[in-house]
Order: sequence, then C-alpha cells, then structure tokens
Amino acid sequence: MTYTLVLLRHGESEWNAKNLFTGWVDVALSEKGVQEAKRGGQLLKDAGVTPDVLHTSLLRRAITTANYALDVADLLWIPVKRSWRLNERHYGALQGKDKKQIRDEYGEEQFMLWRRSYDVPPPEIELGSEFSQDSDPRYAGEPIPRTEALANVLDRALPYWNSDIVPDLEAGKTVLVTAHGNSIRALVKLLDDVDADTIAGINIPTGIPLVYELDEETLKPVTKGGTYLDPEAAAAAIQAVANQGR
Amino acid sequence: MTYTLVLLRHGESEWNAKNLFTGWVDVALSEKGVQEAKRGGQLLKDAGVTPDVLHTSLLRRAITTANYALDVADLLWIPVKRSWRLNERHYGALQGKDKKQIRDEYGEEQFMLWRRSYDVPPPEIELGSEFSQDSDPRYAGEPIPRTEALANVLDRALPYWNSDIVPDLEAGKTVLVTAHGNSIRALVKLLDDVDADTIAGINIPTGIPLVYELDEETLKPVTKGGTYLDPEAAAAAIQAVANQGR
Repeated sequence: MTYTLVLLRHGESEWNAKNLFTGWVDVALSEKGVQEAKRGGQLLKDAGVTPDVLHTSLLRRAITTANYALDVADLLWIPVKRSWRLNERHYGALQGKDKKQIRDEYGEEQFMLWRRSYDVPPPEIELGSEFSQDSDPRYAGEPIPRTEALANVLDRALPYWNSDIVPDLEAGKTVLVTAHGNSIRALVKLLDDVDADTIAGINIPTGIPLVYELDEETLKPVTKGGTYLDPEAAAAAIQAVANQGR
Repeated sequence: MTYTLVLLRHGESEWNAKNLFTGWVDVALSEKGVQEAKRGGQLLKDAGVTPDVLHTSLLRRAITTANYALDVADLLWIPVKRSWRLNERHYGALQGKDKKQIRDEYGEEQFMLWRRSYDVPPPEIELGSEFSQDSDPRYAGEPIPRTEALANVLDRALPYWNSDIVPDLEAGKTVLVTAHGNSIRALVKLLDDVDADTIAGINIPTGIPLVYELDEETLKPVTKGGTYLDPEAAAAAIQAVANQGR
C-alpha cells in the first residue's frame, strides 16, 4: 500500500508579477494566480485525486490558492491545518526589494548565492522595518527567523512534517500541502533524498499539483520526483521559474 | 471578564436569489453574497473585532463567506474547524423546491409551519434523490438527518457547541462562527433563552457580524440579543429576510 501526498505551489502573487523578493510579506494572488489556483483544482478533479485533509502556510497566497482549488474540486469542506513552518523562505533584508536591482547591485554571483545556495542566507531583516513580521500577531510566541537559507526552511518544516503531516498520511488520508516554492523544495529534498547541489537546480511550477505516492514503510516515493498532474505545463512552467530575475 | 462570540450568517447564495429551499444543497454565493461577505470582514476590521479562531459548517456558502470576510480583515490565517453540526437546517423533501410554488400548493399556513414552527419538520427527503446528501462523502459515517425542524438543529448543534466552541471561548479566544440562518437562530435561542414562539419571529441578516459578550461564569450574554456591527443595515436586512417567499 502507498500513501498519497499532493504538493501545490501557490499561483502567481502580485509581487511575483512585480519581480520583488516576497518571502514572508503577505501579498495577495494576482488575477493570473487566481486562475492558476482554479486550474490546479480542476487538475485534481479531472485526475480523481481527492485530498482528505489540507495543510497550508500562514500566508494568504497559499491559503487563497487552496481555497480556489478546493472550491473547484468540490472539497472546500475538508479539514485544514495551518503553520508558519510551511511558509515561504524568509528572505531577510531582501524582502520587498526588486530582484533585478539586487542583481545589478550585488552582481550575478552573490544574487545566485542568495537565491540558490543551500545554506547561505541573505542578511537578517531589521526588526520593526517595513517588511519585517516581528510584530505580526500570527507569529506571536513562535521562534520565527529573521532570514533563512533553504537549509533553515527544511529545519523548521521538519518538525511540522513529523508532528502533523506524517500522522495524516499514516492514517491513510490523501494529504494536500499548499505552500511555497522553497517550502515545497525543502519537502522534495527530504522525500527524494536530493543533495544540496541538485536541489539548487529544481524549480517548482505554480498551480500544478505534484503527486507523490509514498511507500507505507519508508515514507519514500515509489517514483522519485513524483508526478505532475499536467507534465507538459509543469515542464514549461519550470523553465519560466528558472528565468525569474533575468 | 467576558468572552467574545461573533455569529456571521453567510451572504446571499445563488438559491436565496432564486427563492428556492436550499437546506443542505451545497450552492455557491451569488455575486451579491460575495460583496456581503467582504463587507462583513470590513465591519469586523473597522470595529477592531479580531477573531482568534473560526468555526464553519461544511457548506461552501458559509466557508466562502468566512474566507472573503477574513481576507478583508487580514485574518485568513487563523485556525478553522468545520462541522456538519453547524449546517443549515435540513429542509427534507422541500430541498430544491421553489418557495412560492410550495406556498401556493400547500397554502400559507402549512408553508409558515414548515418555515417557522419550532418542532414540525417538512417531510423526509427520499434517499438517493437529486437533492439528498446521503452519498456525499463529507457526511460519511455521520448520523445525518433526512429532515429537520429548528428544534432538531439545536439538538445536533449543541454537542458541537459544548465540545468545540465552548472550550475555545473558555480559553479566552474571540470565536467567529460562520454559518446559516437556522443554525445561528438555534445558537441565539440557546444563548438568549428565547422560547419557541419568540424564536419564530427572529430573523438573522446576511453578512452582518452579530457580537455577543458572554459572562465567563454562565456563558450567557451580557446584552441579550447581542450587538450587530451595523445596526441600521441589520434592521433593514431582517425586514428583507422576513419578506422571503412573498
């Protein structure tokens, strides 16, 4: 027997469209993002993949994506849990900054290091600054970061994976995780045992459900890398993500 | 000290607009209903009422209302629980039928008895019929009804009130319940100790948050009937609900 895990990256946000570093800034979906979310729901429905439970981050672009997708899939009623541990990578002092401007200012090498290195985080965000979340009530009492590399995202997602997602899988539930480019990459690294160099080259397309069948003993994928519900669109979208910041 | 409970009836649905008995049929909000939901969120925000936790029914018109309202109020991230015990009254064999047609066919007295009596339910719905929910996966394994009077709604809502809502109140959380005309009337009857005759005359307006401050010892309202966040609009809307089916 296998367990079914579905990973869904939120649709385009207003800041994806503007080419700004977003991280934990709580921006809304763009109209294109809303359409991507609905299409994700239609893909689930057409494939007969019916999540029993939803896990999301605390950011509205992931929550709204799940809401639109599940509405289309007639599954708006399923139970949901949310955690900051599924949030996007905290981009530190880069949050709110223009990607192209940062690239021009710091150069291609530093830019790619901050974007893609496994364990080099950007500089910490200043507490109390415009794009900091230190006084946001949703994180009250939580040990939230001031910057993160992908390694930090995996470190803080892992306790939630173990405490909340794994038990749902082991109860035989089809689990939908609606989250972000980097929190999903962290889970993909965990599931597929990808090394730090390889994960740097893996992009997650927006709005296309990625389905993993997991071995019930090992919780490892039967098919490494999982299966996108629309493989052609996924391939095209992965290429588009790779071009961000150009 | 008091506890804060906010009751919010979903905005207009596609079938409210068509004047059909809806009950457990899972219809969407109308465009007007979406606007009502957003306005409900704005009223919460303007009043500085910030729910810490959401409870909804399993029906999309309530879930979507909460989603739009909480998005406007910047609270889309709060925890949520859902239960069929907060669903609208099951309208039995009347589900999917035109209100005016039923009134013409059965007469004003029978029509008002089914709509407004405390304990006379409509005839049971036929299992497997178009507007029955007996094979709907969201209710699998639950002791769901085939018709209900308001008394039955209170009977099945009460266990959830005690098991899930009261503990949140007692933990000091501001609780938002987004539900339906009759499941909210059942809670109002419970809270205000209204008798069966009086509750028949109480209508709940759509999309206007009704705030109860509850005594921490008795869980009874400090102000009977609570307080609508927009009292004038509430008064006008209550009159409009009373005219339904005319």
